[in-house]
Amino acid sequence: MVLEKILKENDIKKIPESEWPLLAGEIRDFLIDKISVTGGHLGSNLGAVELTMALHLFCNLPDDKIVWDVGHQSYTHKLLTGRREGFDTLRKYGGMAGFPKTKESPCDCFNTGHSSTSISAGLGLVKARDLRGEDHTIISVIGDGSLTGGMAYEALNNASKLTSNFIIVLNDNNMSISENVGGVSKYLNSIRTADGYLGLKESVYNNLIKIPGGEGIAKRIKKAKSTVKSMVVPGMFFEDMGITYLGPVDGHDVKAILTVLKDAKRCKGPVLVHVNTKKGKGYLPAERHPSRFHGTEPFDVATGLPTHPHNKANYTDVFSTVMMKLGERNDKVVAITAAMADGTGLKRFRNAYPDRFFDVGIAEEHAVTFAAGLAAGGMRPVVAIYSSFLQRAYDQILHDVCIQSLPVTFAIDRAGVVGSDGETHQGIFDISFLSSIPGITIMAPKNKWELSDMLKFAVSFDGPTAIRYPRGEAYDGLEGYRAPIALGKSEMIFEENSVAIVALGSMVKTAESVRMRLKMEGINCTLVNARFVKPLDEEMILSLTRNHKLIVTCEENVASGGFGERVREFLDKEGSDVNLITVSIPDEYVEHGNVDLLKKEIGIDEDSIYNKIMSAYSRL
Amino acid sequence: MVLEKILKENDIKKIPESEWPLLAGEIRDFLIDKISVTGGHLGSNLGAVELTMALHLFCNLPDDKIVWDVGHQSYTHKLLTGRREGFDTLRKYGGMAGFPKTKESPCDCFNTGHSSTSISAGLGLVKARDLRGEDHTIISVIGDGSLTGGMAYEALNNASKLTSNFIIVLNDNNMSISENVGGVSKYLNSIRTADGYLGLKESVYNNLIKIPGGEGIAKRIKKAKSTVKSMVVPGMFFEDMGITYLGPVDGHDVKAILTVLKDAKRCKGPVLVHVNTKKGKGYLPAERHPSRFHGTEPFDVATGLPTHPHNKANYTDVFSTVMMKLGERNDKVVAITAAMADGTGLKRFRNAYPDRFFDVGIAEEHAVTFAAGLAAGGMRPVVAIYSSFLQRAYDQILHDVCIQSLPVTFAIDRAGVVGSDGETHQGIFDISFLSSIPGITIMAPKNKWELSDMLKFAVSFDGPTAIRYPRGEAYDGLEGYRAPIALGKSEMIFEENSVAIVALGSMVKTAESVRMRLKMEGINCTLVNARFVKPLDEEMILSLTRNHKLIVTCEENVASGGFGERVREFLDKEGSDVNLITVSIPDEYVEHGNVDLLKKEIGIDEDSIYNKIMSAYSRL
Repeated sequence: MVLEKILKENDIKKIPESEWPLLAGEIRDFLIDKISVTGGHLGSNLGAVELTMALHLFCNLPDDKIVWDVGHQSYTHKLLTGRREGFDTLRKYGGMAGFPKTKESPCDCFNTGHSSTSISAGLGLVKARDLRGEDHTIISVIGDGSLTGGMAYEALNNASKLTSNFIIVLNDNNMSISENVGGVSKYLNSIRTADGYLGLKESVYNNLIKIPGGEGIAKRIKKAKSTVKSMVVPGMFFEDMGITYLGPVDGHDVKAILTVLKDAKRCKGPVLVHVNTKKGKGYLPAERHPSRFHGTEPFDVATGLPTHPHNKANYTDVFSTVMMKLGERNDKVVAITAAMADGTGLKRFRNAYPDRFFDVGIAEEHAVTFAAGLAAGGMRPVVAIYSSFLQRAYDQILHDVCIQSLPVTFAIDRAGVVGSDGETHQGIFDISFLSSIPGITIMAPKNKWELSDMLKFAVSFDGPTAIRYPRGEAYDGLEGYRAPIALGKSEMIFEENSVAIVALGSMVKTAESVRMRLKMEGINCTLVNARFVKPLDEEMILSLTRNHKLIVTCEENVASGGFGERVREFLDKEGSDVNLITVSIPDEYVEHGNVDLLKKEIGIDEDSIYNKIMSAYSRL
Repeated sequence: MVLEKILKENDIKKIPESEWPLLAGEIRDFLIDKISVTGGHLGSNLGAVELTMALHLFCNLPDDKIVWDVGHQSYTHKLLTGRREGFDTLRKYGGMAGFPKTKESPCDCFNTGHSSTSISAGLGLVKARDLRGEDHTIISVIGDGSLTGGMAYEALNNASKLTSNFIIVLNDNNMSISENVGGVSKYLNSIRTADGYLGLKESVYNNLIKIPGGEGIAKRIKKAKSTVKSMVVPGMFFEDMGITYLGPVDGHDVKAILTVLKDAKRCKGPVLVHVNTKKGKGYLPAERHPSRFHGTEPFDVATGLPTHPHNKANYTDVFSTVMMKLGERNDKVVAITAAMADGTGLKRFRNAYPDRFFDVGIAEEHAVTFAAGLAAGGMRPVVAIYSSFLQRAYDQILHDVCIQSLPVTFAIDRAGVVGSDGETHQGIFDISFLSSIPGITIMAPKNKWELSDMLKFAVSFDGPTAIRYPRGEAYDGLEGYRAPIALGKSEMIFEENSVAIVALGSMVKTAESVRMRLKMEGINCTLVNARFVKPLDEEMILSLTRNHKLIVTCEENVASGGFGERVREFLDKEGSDVNLITVSIPDEYVEHGNVDLLKKEIGIDEDSIYNKIMSAYSRL
């Protein structure tokens, strides 16, 4: 095994060129083998094997810095920097993260997770390097999907002023998570197939004068330099922004990538190296189903099929089905996703109503203001974005949707603890950042039927609404409880006295289990399904104070600005002296791991809630 | 007066072409006359007079839709749509807004305020139009400054797919609020001076074959179409993205703009019309000092000098001075602004330490992650952004700075009620959206010396910090109170008993006045300067509960997720039964108007607080 010779960073440099293909193959086998057991990001990692090898052959780590955009493609980087053992605990609680983490290795220079940040971060590292008089190499590796995010463009626009070296590697697999969108993608496509990298020595001008008539034109037309360039090399889009373009180069040819990196290093200023790669390269199921193997559960290597297929519908499936119905009933309903047609369940809507479906790329900001425009034009947009990515559009939600009170519905998937993707992806802040916005209505369903009812309510409601629901299996209990949704009204599920649990969304299921355990201890317990964070059902809460000694709120969100705080504020202003426990996520980041384990760790699982209540109850 | 003939939208169409220049002159005189009295945005409006006239001659309002990016340049639009009288109450409480407002006129189709939203909103309106089978014209007017924002690029990228008409007018004055930055700006500069608009009829290809040798090249080289275009027309950057480019055209020639708009309307798909304008056009002081006349206080028309010059330093001045000192003492201190070198007071730092100053354009997202990169590289970045614009970078603050606990300092200017710019610009959410982020330290100074002390503390603190301070005059009272800043420690100013006011930042001054009035009524009142929102000084608050019957928190932020809620949560968890009043901004948008008036309206002025305390006290 060649791979076994690599125990730490820079060890790859000892591997002779002749063994590079062998090494690439071994890395692929290793990744497929490990990820098939643990789950994780496969396609992007298989696509970046040779690119990562070339970067490691080129760089002197950890002095040189590689910033991985998003970071899910950093597995080979981890493998080549002494973290081989980590793959057995990949994305497990306490184990190796699925994204770069500075605390894991000095070779991880900057944490990533969300898209389109790497050029900004890399540019910061470049400026710091220059100001400190250092001279290491800084490389930001960004996918073509991440290039649809506005931040990447802001960074390119700023990089143009640089007079020192900064290498941006465009890892172009012609995909974001699924297919890519927009004019820039189309443009990249047109140059993917161009003649290929010419090398810095063969200067652009020299190429021109070889073309018959070329020299004459060069003299005749204005702005000769840029015009000339566009005739012989692709990449003028970047050159126009002030970024030197080198490429395209075959992203599965280590030597070719090394050659262009060496040329890139000689550029005084920002340089973009365009590398063509294939997502899932070397594993047929992943090549054929890039979207399914983007982030995968454990699978059978021979067939590519999931080891533990899910039988029960998850919330995304429910959303998917309801959107189909809404699309059919109301031709004003339109759906918007930011590069997550698959992940958010909008694929069926896209296929059924292509004119009313919009995948805007990894561009959450545009997604939201575009939805505001659609709503201002009389449509009923539903914007489906994961909770942690919606953080990107906080200003647009406030400034473009809510100030104008436009009827946009935010379908917030992956709200709450998401598990193995870890701290950058936990959807535990949305209640906080949305609650402070005047005029927004915020809901969370207790089970799959309620998600359906809430969506129907939202698209016919005259104002901005948000519905948050968690990753994973949709709760199908409490099916008999389906009181119509009314603005700001909670749902009484079991009315007793003594203790009242007011649970929000996913926590209703947990609260119901807690209630049963309390019952067994002889403690009467009321269970209220909160339904609305905002407006708050003040009437219900006030009525609970009359015959309960203890009120317990439960939510899958941080405490600050959360649901419990709203209840507390209300109770306090009413002068109530009822005892209140607010169960929520403490003020710290939640790392990667199994969701149930994480919930236990942060004290929002059944046992923790039960114990909190028992302890408080005994002191009453 | 030609202007007097225009009483409502479309009236301009009755004005003969010969009188257009006269009308433009009268509009300029009107704007200068009115704004010199009320204050407001002058430069951008003077620059857009002819452009707005052409748009109004071209459009059929309100059926056709004009989306004004940012919206501060919409004064002529307001004037031409029957809102002439409104200029006497411009930006006054209850009067006409300084930005487009759908509630003011059906000719205002979409509210704006923040930068770079117009193409997204316009694209939404286009899609709604097409889906509804309507055929009006939709025009987004965006400045070159706004084009430095990533959202605009996300929108252009998405607009490229359109097959129906959508006109984007690039109002290029070679400025954002002050000078413009980045590669795209440089690129625009290069085409500003190009040969000018050729007209659709003279096709690109026809032009090429007129060039000697042109026909031959067209055959020889690949990708002939785009290469050919770049030789004869500018704008390939946009064409590469799939946007038809028309221009540049003289933005002060109504007829020329009309001609190109008519051609643009014939394009099937997105078309960008590049219009060159001059900021401040027609008023020499504004042409010469574009930054000062961007948003101006009342001024003397003859001299251009402020009618009521400010003598006392404002917080921005204080920040400016301290940054100079910090820059001198510590060569790791770097400063970042998003197109607000003037507004945030970083101009002096820029001049003194040009290598350590970064104006990234209107690109708050990049600004923050770029700062994170600088911090990861060992520098001490200070990011100065207005509170309401920082909303744009919520995710970057959380994801790129705070998860990694990088030592970035956010200097949040215009935090609190900002006054005449209105609801889109009020800085009243920052405590809420920052507080929910684990690991961030949030401060607010009581007076000018404390801002200085806090900044010094922040740049030497090992973690992310935010300091919020309001627009306007820096408080210079309580000068004797200058206990050293210590993490999470408040400052006892007057220690008494009975009532304790814990005031944050700007509210310390107000609270001190309230305290004196209470004193006159014989009520003892403790005054605590909170200093830190996070971490909260729990020790101090706990100690206050021991000898006070009533605790009053005061902050210039919305209630939800604010300072008062943190105090309430703490008191409740401690089981304290002390009475608490939380003075904060209610859950609604705060419109434009005089700051003192607005504070009274929302109940955070001296009288309101005094009355709240007296009322609660009497019930104790």
